[in-house]
Amino acid sequence: MALQKLNHAERAEALTQLPGWTHEPTRDAITKTFRFKDFAAAWGFMSQVALAAEKADHHPEWFNVYNRVDVLLTTHDCDGLSKRDVALALVMEGLAG
Amino acid sequence: MALQKLNHAERAEALTQLPGWTHEPTRDAITKTFRFKDFAAAWGFMSQVALAAEKADHHPEWFNVYNRVDVLLTTHDCDGLSKRDVALALVMEGLAG
Repeated sequence: MALQKLNHAERAEALTQLPGWTHEPTRDAITKTFRFKDFAAAWGFMSQVALAAEKADHHPEWFNVYNRVDVLLTTHDCDGLSKRDVALALVMEGLAG
Repeated sequence: MALQKLNHAERAEALTQLPGWTHEPTRDAITKTFRFKDFAAAWGFMSQVALAAEKADHHPEWFNVYNRVDVLLTTHDCDGLSKRDVALALVMEGLAG
Protein backbone atom coordinates (compact mmCIF):
# COMPACT_ATOMS: atom_id res chain seq x y z
CA MET A 1 0.00 0.00 0.00
CA ALA A 2 1.30 3.43 -0.90
CA LEU A 3 2.36 5.74 1.88
CA GLN A 4 0.03 8.62 2.55
CA LYS A 5 0.94 12.21 3.27
CA LEU A 6 0.25 13.36 6.80
CA ASN A 7 -2.74 15.63 7.01
CA HIS A 8 -2.58 18.98 8.76
CA ALA A 9 -3.53 17.64 12.20
CA GLU A 10 -1.12 14.69 11.96
CA ARG A 11 1.69 16.99 10.92
CA ALA A 12 1.01 19.42 13.77
CA GLU A 13 0.98 16.51 16.22
CA ALA A 14 4.27 15.18 14.83
CA LEU A 15 5.98 18.56 15.12
CA THR A 16 5.13 18.76 18.83
CA GLN A 17 7.41 15.73 19.28
CA LEU A 18 10.21 17.29 17.21
CA PRO A 19 11.73 20.37 18.85
CA GLY A 20 13.67 22.57 16.45
CA TRP A 21 12.14 21.03 13.34
CA THR A 22 10.39 23.33 10.88
CA HIS A 23 7.78 22.54 8.27
CA GLU A 24 8.88 23.64 4.81
CA PRO A 25 5.64 24.07 2.86
CA THR A 26 7.02 24.28 -0.68
CA ARG A 27 8.17 20.67 -0.53
CA ASP A 28 5.95 19.53 2.36
CA ALA A 29 9.14 18.59 4.18
CA ILE A 30 10.58 19.00 7.66
CA THR A 31 14.01 20.52 8.21
CA LYS A 32 16.46 21.02 11.04
CA THR A 33 20.03 22.22 11.43
CA PHE A 34 22.13 20.22 13.89
CA ARG A 35 25.39 21.59 15.25
CA PHE A 36 28.11 19.52 16.89
CA LYS A 37 31.47 20.06 18.56
CA ASP A 38 33.48 19.40 15.41
CA PHE A 39 33.50 17.43 12.17
CA ALA A 40 34.18 14.11 13.91
CA ALA A 41 31.10 14.56 16.07
CA ALA A 42 28.95 15.61 13.12
CA TRP A 43 30.22 12.67 11.11
CA GLY A 44 29.55 10.26 13.97
CA PHE A 45 25.95 11.44 14.02
CA MET A 46 25.60 11.16 10.25
CA SER A 47 27.09 7.65 10.23
CA GLN A 48 24.58 6.41 12.76
CA VAL A 49 21.73 8.08 10.89
CA ALA A 50 22.97 6.55 7.61
CA LEU A 51 22.72 3.03 9.03
CA ALA A 52 19.21 3.70 10.36
CA ALA A 53 18.16 5.26 7.06
CA GLU A 54 19.49 2.34 5.03
CA LYS A 55 17.76 -0.14 7.32
CA ALA A 56 14.45 1.72 6.93
CA ASP A 57 15.09 2.26 3.21
CA HIS A 58 14.23 5.90 3.79
CA HIS A 59 16.99 8.43 3.23
CA PRO A 60 17.50 12.05 4.20
CA GLU A 61 18.52 14.97 2.05
CA TRP A 62 21.35 16.50 3.99
CA PHE A 63 24.15 19.01 3.76
CA ASN A 64 27.26 19.01 5.92
CA VAL A 65 29.97 21.54 6.45
CA TYR A 66 32.38 20.90 9.32
CA ASN A 67 30.27 20.68 12.51
CA ARG A 68 26.94 21.54 10.90
CA VAL A 69 24.37 19.17 9.41
CA ASP A 70 21.27 20.55 7.65
CA VAL A 71 18.61 17.90 7.21
CA LEU A 72 15.49 17.87 5.02
CA LEU A 73 13.06 14.97 5.22
CA THR A 74 10.24 14.25 2.83
CA THR A 75 8.88 11.16 1.12
CA HIS A 76 9.25 10.96 -2.64
CA ASP A 77 6.68 8.15 -2.93
CA CYS A 78 3.86 10.37 -1.69
CA ASP A 79 5.43 13.69 -2.68
CA GLY A 80 5.26 15.04 0.86
CA LEU A 81 5.65 14.35 4.54
CA SER A 82 4.83 10.84 5.76
CA LYS A 83 5.17 8.89 8.97
CA ARG A 84 8.50 7.59 7.70
CA ASP A 85 9.93 11.12 7.90
CA VAL A 86 8.66 11.52 11.44
CA ALA A 87 10.20 8.17 12.39
CA LEU A 88 13.58 9.15 10.91
CA ALA A 89 13.47 12.57 12.58
CA LEU A 90 12.85 10.87 15.93
CA VAL A 91 15.85 8.61 15.32
CA MET A 92 17.96 11.70 14.62
CA GLU A 93 16.75 13.38 17.81
CA GLY A 94 17.73 10.29 19.79
CA LEU A 95 21.17 10.16 18.21
CA ALA A 96 21.90 13.88 18.44
CA GLY A 97 21.41 13.59 22.21
CA MET B 1 52.44 30.11 7.11
CA ALA B 2 49.02 30.97 5.79
CA LEU B 3 47.73 29.10 2.80
CA GLN B 4 47.62 31.08 -0.41
CA LYS B 5 44.88 31.12 -2.99
CA LEU B 6 45.78 29.53 -6.29
CA ASN B 7 46.36 32.07 -9.00
CA HIS B 8 44.63 31.82 -12.36
CA ALA B 9 47.32 29.68 -13.99
CA GLU B 10 47.59 27.33 -11.02
CA ARG B 11 43.83 26.91 -10.94
CA ALA B 12 43.66 26.18 -14.67
CA GLU B 13 46.44 23.62 -14.29
CA ALA B 14 44.65 21.97 -11.35
CA LEU B 15 41.37 21.69 -13.26
CA THR B 16 43.07 19.79 -16.08
CA GLN B 17 43.71 17.03 -13.52
CA LEU B 18 40.12 17.07 -12.29
CA PRO B 19 37.63 15.91 -14.92
CA GLY B 20 34.06 16.97 -14.20
CA TRP B 21 35.03 19.61 -11.67
CA THR B 22 33.82 23.16 -12.24
CA HIS B 23 35.19 26.41 -10.91
CA GLU B 24 32.55 28.38 -9.05
CA PRO B 25 33.75 31.99 -9.20
CA THR B 26 31.48 33.55 -6.55
CA ARG B 27 33.16 31.57 -3.81
CA ASP B 28 36.38 30.70 -5.66
CA ALA B 29 35.51 27.06 -5.10
CA ILE B 30 35.47 23.86 -7.14
CA THR B 31 32.36 21.71 -7.35
CA LYS B 32 31.36 18.31 -8.67
CA THR B 33 28.32 16.05 -8.53
CA PHE B 34 29.11 12.37 -8.04
CA ARG B 35 26.48 9.70 -8.74
CA PHE B 36 26.62 6.14 -7.46
CA LYS B 37 24.58 2.96 -7.75
CA ASP B 38 22.61 3.57 -4.58
CA PHE B 39 22.78 5.14 -1.13
CA ALA B 40 25.11 2.47 0.25
CA ALA B 41 27.63 3.17 -2.51
CA ALA B 42 27.35 6.94 -2.06
CA TRP B 43 27.76 6.54 1.69
CA GLY B 44 30.79 4.28 1.23
CA PHE B 45 32.42 7.00 -0.85
CA MET B 46 31.54 9.71 1.67
CA SER B 47 32.88 7.64 4.58
CA GLN B 48 36.24 7.19 2.92
CA VAL B 49 36.38 10.87 2.03
CA ALA B 50 35.45 11.80 5.62
CA LEU B 51 38.44 9.91 6.99
CA ALA B 52 40.79 11.52 4.49
CA ALA B 53 39.31 14.95 5.20
CA GLU B 54 39.66 14.56 8.95
CA LYS B 55 43.23 13.35 8.57
CA ALA B 56 44.08 16.38 6.43
CA ASP B 57 42.02 18.67 8.68
CA HIS B 58 40.39 19.98 5.53
CA HIS B 59 36.69 19.32 5.12
CA PRO B 60 34.27 19.47 2.20
CA GLU B 61 30.92 21.16 1.96
CA TRP B 62 28.68 18.47 0.64
CA PHE B 63 25.08 17.55 0.02
CA ASN B 64 23.75 14.02 -0.30
CA VAL B 65 20.45 12.67 -1.44
CA TYR B 66 20.27 8.91 -2.01
CA ASN B 67 22.90 8.07 -4.66
CA ARG B 68 24.00 11.64 -5.37
CA VAL B 69 26.78 13.60 -3.65
CA ASP B 70 27.32 17.29 -4.51
CA VAL B 71 30.69 18.53 -3.34
CA LEU B 72 32.05 22.06 -2.97
CA LEU B 73 35.65 22.63 -1.97
CA THR B 74 37.18 25.90 -0.91
CA THR B 75 39.56 27.00 1.83
CA HIS B 76 38.16 29.26 4.52
CA ASP B 77 41.62 30.27 5.75
CA CYS B 78 42.45 31.98 2.47
CA ASP B 79 38.86 32.65 1.38
CA GLY B 80 39.32 30.79 -1.88
CA LEU B 81 40.77 27.81 -3.66
CA SER B 82 44.04 26.42 -2.32
CA LYS B 83 46.22 23.38 -2.98
CA ARG B 84 44.42 21.64 -0.11
CA ASP B 85 41.21 21.68 -2.16
CA VAL B 86 42.99 20.22 -5.15
CA ALA B 87 44.51 17.51 -2.95
CA LEU B 88 41.11 16.58 -1.50
CA ALA B 89 39.49 16.60 -4.96
CA LEU B 90 42.18 14.19 -6.18
CA VAL B 91 41.48 11.91 -3.22
CA MET B 92 37.78 11.96 -4.14
CA GLU B 93 38.58 11.12 -7.76
CA GLY B 94 40.65 8.16 -6.61
CA LEU B 95 37.89 6.91 -4.32
CA ALA B 96 35.01 7.44 -6.76
CA GLY B 97 36.82 5.11 -9.17
